[in-house]
Amino acid sequence: MLPLFYVGWKDSILSPSEMKLIHERIKKLDHLTDADIKYLVKNTDPSHPPKPELYKKWLQAIKTHAEQLDHHERYTLAQLGVEMSLLLLPNASASNMESIISAISELEKAMGIDDPGIQQRLYRQLGWSDVGNVDHHFSFDPSKLHDITNAFQLKIKKDTKSLLLDPLFNIDESLTDKDKQRIKTLERLQALAKQGLGALSYPLANGGHNDMGAYMAVFETLAYHDMSLSVKFGVQFGLFGGAILNLGTPYHHNTYLPKTGTGEYLGCFAMTETGHGSNVKDLETTATYDHTTGNIIIHSPTETSGKEYIGNALHARFAAVFAQLIVGDTNHGIHSVMVPIRDENNNLLPGIKVVDCGHKIGLNGVDNGRIWFDQVVVPKQNLLNRFGDIDQNGKYTSPIENPNKRFFTMLGTLVGGRICVGLGALSAAKTALTIAIHYGTKRRQFAPKDGLPETIIMDYQTHQHRLIPKLIKNIVFHNALSILAEEFASRNDENDIRKIETKAAGLKSLATWLSSETIQTCREACGGKGYLSENTLGRLRADADIFTTFEGDNTVLMQLVAKGLLTEFNQEFHEAGFTAVVRYIGGKIQFRLSEYNPLFTRNTSVEHLESEEFLADALKYREKKTLISLADRMKSYVSKRMEPNEAFLKCQLHMMDAGRAYIERLAYRMMVRKLQSLEASPEKTMLTKINQTYALTILMENRDWYLENDYMEGSKTKALRRVYDKHIASFRNDITGLAESLGVNDRQYNIKP
Amino acid sequence: MLPLFYVGWKDSILSPSEMKLIHERIKKLDHLTDADIKYLVKNTDPSHPPKPELYKKWLQAIKTHAEQLDHHERYTLAQLGVEMSLLLLPNASASNMESIISAISELEKAMGIDDPGIQQRLYRQLGWSDVGNVDHHFSFDPSKLHDITNAFQLKIKKDTKSLLLDPLFNIDESLTDKDKQRIKTLERLQALAKQGLGALSYPLANGGHNDMGAYMAVFETLAYHDMSLSVKFGVQFGLFGGAILNLGTPYHHNTYLPKTGTGEYLGCFAMTETGHGSNVKDLETTATYDHTTGNIIIHSPTETSGKEYIGNALHARFAAVFAQLIVGDTNHGIHSVMVPIRDENNNLLPGIKVVDCGHKIGLNGVDNGRIWFDQVVVPKQNLLNRFGDIDQNGKYTSPIENPNKRFFTMLGTLVGGRICVGLGALSAAKTALTIAIHYGTKRRQFAPKDGLPETIIMDYQTHQHRLIPKLIKNIVFHNALSILAEEFASRNDENDIRKIETKAAGLKSLATWLSSETIQTCREACGGKGYLSENTLGRLRADADIFTTFEGDNTVLMQLVAKGLLTEFNQEFHEAGFTAVVRYIGGKIQFRLSEYNPLFTRNTSVEHLESEEFLADALKYREKKTLISLADRMKSYVSKRMEPNEAFLKCQLHMMDAGRAYIERLAYRMMVRKLQSLEASPEKTMLTKINQTYALTILMENRDWYLENDYMEGSKTKALRRVYDKHIASFRNDITGLAESLGVNDRQYNIKP
Repeated sequence: MLPLFYVGWKDSILSPSEMKLIHERIKKLDHLTDADIKYLVKNTDPSHPPKPELYKKWLQAIKTHAEQLDHHERYTLAQLGVEMSLLLLPNASASNMESIISAISELEKAMGIDDPGIQQRLYRQLGWSDVGNVDHHFSFDPSKLHDITNAFQLKIKKDTKSLLLDPLFNIDESLTDKDKQRIKTLERLQALAKQGLGALSYPLANGGHNDMGAYMAVFETLAYHDMSLSVKFGVQFGLFGGAILNLGTPYHHNTYLPKTGTGEYLGCFAMTETGHGSNVKDLETTATYDHTTGNIIIHSPTETSGKEYIGNALHARFAAVFAQLIVGDTNHGIHSVMVPIRDENNNLLPGIKVVDCGHKIGLNGVDNGRIWFDQVVVPKQNLLNRFGDIDQNGKYTSPIENPNKRFFTMLGTLVGGRICVGLGALSAAKTALTIAIHYGTKRRQFAPKDGLPETIIMDYQTHQHRLIPKLIKNIVFHNALSILAEEFASRNDENDIRKIETKAAGLKSLATWLSSETIQTCREACGGKGYLSENTLGRLRADADIFTTFEGDNTVLMQLVAKGLLTEFNQEFHEAGFTAVVRYIGGKIQFRLSEYNPLFTRNTSVEHLESEEFLADALKYREKKTLISLADRMKSYVSKRMEPNEAFLKCQLHMMDAGRAYIERLAYRMMVRKLQSLEASPEKTMLTKINQTYALTILMENRDWYLENDYMEGSKTKALRRVYDKHIASFRNDITGLAESLGVNDRQYNIKP
Repeated sequence: MLPLFYVGWKDSILSPSEMKLIHERIKKLDHLTDADIKYLVKNTDPSHPPKPELYKKWLQAIKTHAEQLDHHERYTLAQLGVEMSLLLLPNASASNMESIISAISELEKAMGIDDPGIQQRLYRQLGWSDVGNVDHHFSFDPSKLHDITNAFQLKIKKDTKSLLLDPLFNIDESLTDKDKQRIKTLERLQALAKQGLGALSYPLANGGHNDMGAYMAVFETLAYHDMSLSVKFGVQFGLFGGAILNLGTPYHHNTYLPKTGTGEYLGCFAMTETGHGSNVKDLETTATYDHTTGNIIIHSPTETSGKEYIGNALHARFAAVFAQLIVGDTNHGIHSVMVPIRDENNNLLPGIKVVDCGHKIGLNGVDNGRIWFDQVVVPKQNLLNRFGDIDQNGKYTSPIENPNKRFFTMLGTLVGGRICVGLGALSAAKTALTIAIHYGTKRRQFAPKDGLPETIIMDYQTHQHRLIPKLIKNIVFHNALSILAEEFASRNDENDIRKIETKAAGLKSLATWLSSETIQTCREACGGKGYLSENTLGRLRADADIFTTFEGDNTVLMQLVAKGLLTEFNQEFHEAGFTAVVRYIGGKIQFRLSEYNPLFTRNTSVEHLESEEFLADALKYREKKTLISLADRMKSYVSKRMEPNEAFLKCQLHMMDAGRAYIERLAYRMMVRKLQSLEASPEKTMLTKINQTYALTILMENRDWYLENDYMEGSKTKALRRVYDKHIASFRNDITGLAESLGVNDRQYNIKP
């Protein structure tokens, strides 16, 4: 009876009349002697509560007698008491025990203490720290959920994670020397190359598997654990190798890809310059064709034309250099040229100047440098000539006549990198969430009342609201980017690129911003422990930070998304500037919501607010209306003869909003699509709930817009909040299962005690 | 005429009919010959625009002829042309020139190109990079504004900044070795101590100036530049020394303060334990009095009772240890005891175990460690006995009978540290803003049109909206914390502490969160450059990050703020748990908005929306209503017999909202107070505008609440947005002046080219 009475009394939850009823029941317990009964009744008299010292003795007795029991077993209080007794009465009959358990269980129920949370508290006091964190029994199977959400290239993701368990990939969180970090990263890169992982996307004839999707999956998976390695891998095989693959022709594929894939040729992707990051069109580096020699001269005309932040710059033998191609007297715009920058002994070649970018906030395993070219001569065939070539007569030729279109087409082939970057950032966020969720379900602080165990911080509403919405968004955006990766990897038609580009730009932006916010939230949620380097969160945040800037600055990308929407994907994605868009809008018939009747209703029932009908419509309304109001606004500025650039500058924020509304809805719809492909299962139920809660989260975050635009009234948004709060709280019991389903658990990322 | 025509034509902004009018005017220019006029008219024919080569020639001509002019002068186009001519016609008469300038200026105006921005573009093309960034002429004097906003302890702030210019304080951004960083930080600390800066708050008799405010100003100022130093300074002089000062008695002051102030006694503040951070009341370390020996035994009973994250742990000779004081059989709660932990040769004393916390995300100049005490014996007089003592008979005595009240009073004396931490975080944010604003007003990317100079990124609406609201909030919160620091430093009555505590908790939380968000935004706004360690932003963010966790975890603090509000500051600030609050609310008469009539109006005029009457009322309404709805909700839960702890858990988010609404309004009101103390001046005008824009920002961020609570309708919030956008844009021309007024410019923090 001891556990029952210890807990029942300590929690002081019984009123006198309830206690009287308890006494009645105690008297009916057959297995107790009269002396027993007298003792129990005497010590459960509300007007004479036991002294603290007696509680201590009871607890100590339980500790002592339960010492030999299995500390991981989730006993009810009745079972615990009986198990303890059995240790003292090894000959007790089983049937006897069963009826006793039954009777005490009934009492436990009657006292209202047959609750996992209450049992938890006792176990905590016994020092059984691992016992049945109430969330060991999830409503779904975490590994099944993992396999469903990672269905695209599942095998290679698992293989890569196994590979990463090799001690070679262990990270010393206290290693701050960047030169040592770079050496290790290069070592690890070469180990991956040896496994053939670098060449996955290359043609079979060049040592590859022709499997872009597999390459993308490796990049994504590396980022759970080591973003320096992931980025170096991406630079070498995806950017450098990718430039050769997508902008070169079979000559280049055959000449460079095999050794690129094995890591024998280290290369870098020299596009960004100090003076030009986002604005690739106006790079200053020149590639001038000299017909007398048949060579191309690469030159950095100014200080600011130097290539900057170039990964692999300190190790590479080759650079795929993006420059203005000048043939005759004509500048044909940006093209890419293969330029050897070091010899086989790793010495810089003449005319090449490389300066180390030095220590960075993160990614110090990646050697970033600046590169200037001083009249460096390369043969004509080094021009990656898929989209632009120079014939024997020294004339420029191209399959795409329009220079702008040509430029966009070239850049479009590189959009896979943008999708990878979004997925990589989410991988890092998953690791951070795993750490924070594990910590939050173990860490305790503040007791509801003196003497009770301190509360597990994941039980606090504030803590749930910090982590759960981020977890949900991560899952939804991961799904969207995974599907997009699959679409990209399996595309047939370069015309498909346009829509993929817009989605990639928007999903990359929101995913990387989400990742940075998530990791920051996780650091704060782990308090002082989160600030120690040994607990990984600092490295994750420092590494992931730049993902919001490279492969396209997010703020610029979101405006490109809006541009795509405004021009209904008609205009070239990288069309010069935004003034053209403004003019385009000015010339169009006004957008209308005509094909769509929004679901305006005052219904505030839970059923309605949770329904897909409502959530899908709300997301759609915001997307459409934000875009239409943007277009209308631009039109009105144009009709007032405002300079197009002025109009653009005034509409930028609105463009960001329109892009965000579109992408946030897109992520929801892509999960709906995913769900449609699944059979009924607990995992499908969980994902459905996640998507539903995601939509509720987006609506909550944009309540101001919905109220302002009369889609909902105050009474409805207040009801919405209640539904949202309920949804967030409902994830509590499953939260470590969801963390497990993220698939980061191989390396046991955990806060060290 | 050349600059005029180059610009006028290049910008292509004149319609044919406008050009016709221009031609009429040209013909009237006396100083031109017929041949001149013919040339000009011919080359400004819209149907026959000049070839690109001619533009180039015009530009080259301007460059050549303007070479010898002062490149920093802000010429209008008319002036430029005339100055160029004068170089060729040194004998031209002055009066002639004046009338020519006048005529050409008129033409300039008529063409609509007498605009600083347009002039700017030309200067850029001439390569005159420093010319009249339009914001060299501010609407106020930056150094006067600095002195006004830093009026509290202005002199010592300036002296400290001067001191920091000494090469000893130069930071090598690539130094990552934590042991070397710690050595440097200790060196710098001792240099500050030598200057007497550490002892400022100590009594005169103990080597100090009795000037708490001065100490706080030094802490704040150090944080602009070196947060490791600032924190180590704070630990040594503020926490360790502060514990002696505030919790000890003259015996302790005389024994320890003089050498603490000189840095001869290095000490640490051993409060936080691995198992208990926020919940100080339940620290596990024990301090047990033994009457037979007259000693106190300090002991760490469990692994988790070890002190953790203790700054100065690796260097300190003494620790102010917070432990449960046990006298006789009674636990009298948390008290502080001076415990020597190292001898004068820096060897650990017996029973003391110290383990290095290792590398951290930031603040690696601070040596944080874990400390366990194994039955360490100290004499009774080591008890810091201001609020609790042990008499000769071995009996515990205290001037404060109630143990809870005693506990709160002790902690209350330490609230100065919390104010310091808020100010320190804002200092770091100011440095980040300075860097980002300078960069943003120089960096260019994307031209509105081919051939035009690329746009300065600070001219983009998106860029302005990223940085300006943060800048404004920083200035407003800095003012609030500065005033609070002054109130704290000059307080007479320990009863004043209660309200100061609530304000300190809330302002510290919002200021540190603001700082982290600001620095992150600045990093992203500086793109790739922001990611290089040499540009400081990484260090600022990594160092400032922990300010949201230490000196009180922000999420916990905000709930304490709400508690203060709910109990009308009647309850002890650190009152055990929140369930008491819930019961308190349950017992009170309902709050009412009775003494206050909100200003409900549909007025959407700009005048109204900008008015102090409206803004102050809107902030007040949100504060009051959020609190009342919270209290009502708690009452209803209590009346439904919900367990108080359950009610608390359900109301946590609402408590956060109530705390935030109060603090956001508090910051506004404290600026109003500041403004009332100022004479009319351009600086007062600027601060008034800043406070106005701050209020608009808060309203914008909480539009959902205002709409939901029927304070504003959609038409009003839409009008509000237009006013807000206008306000943000209006800071463009003054932005580098505002950056200058932050006072971080001594060290020329700038992005390296």
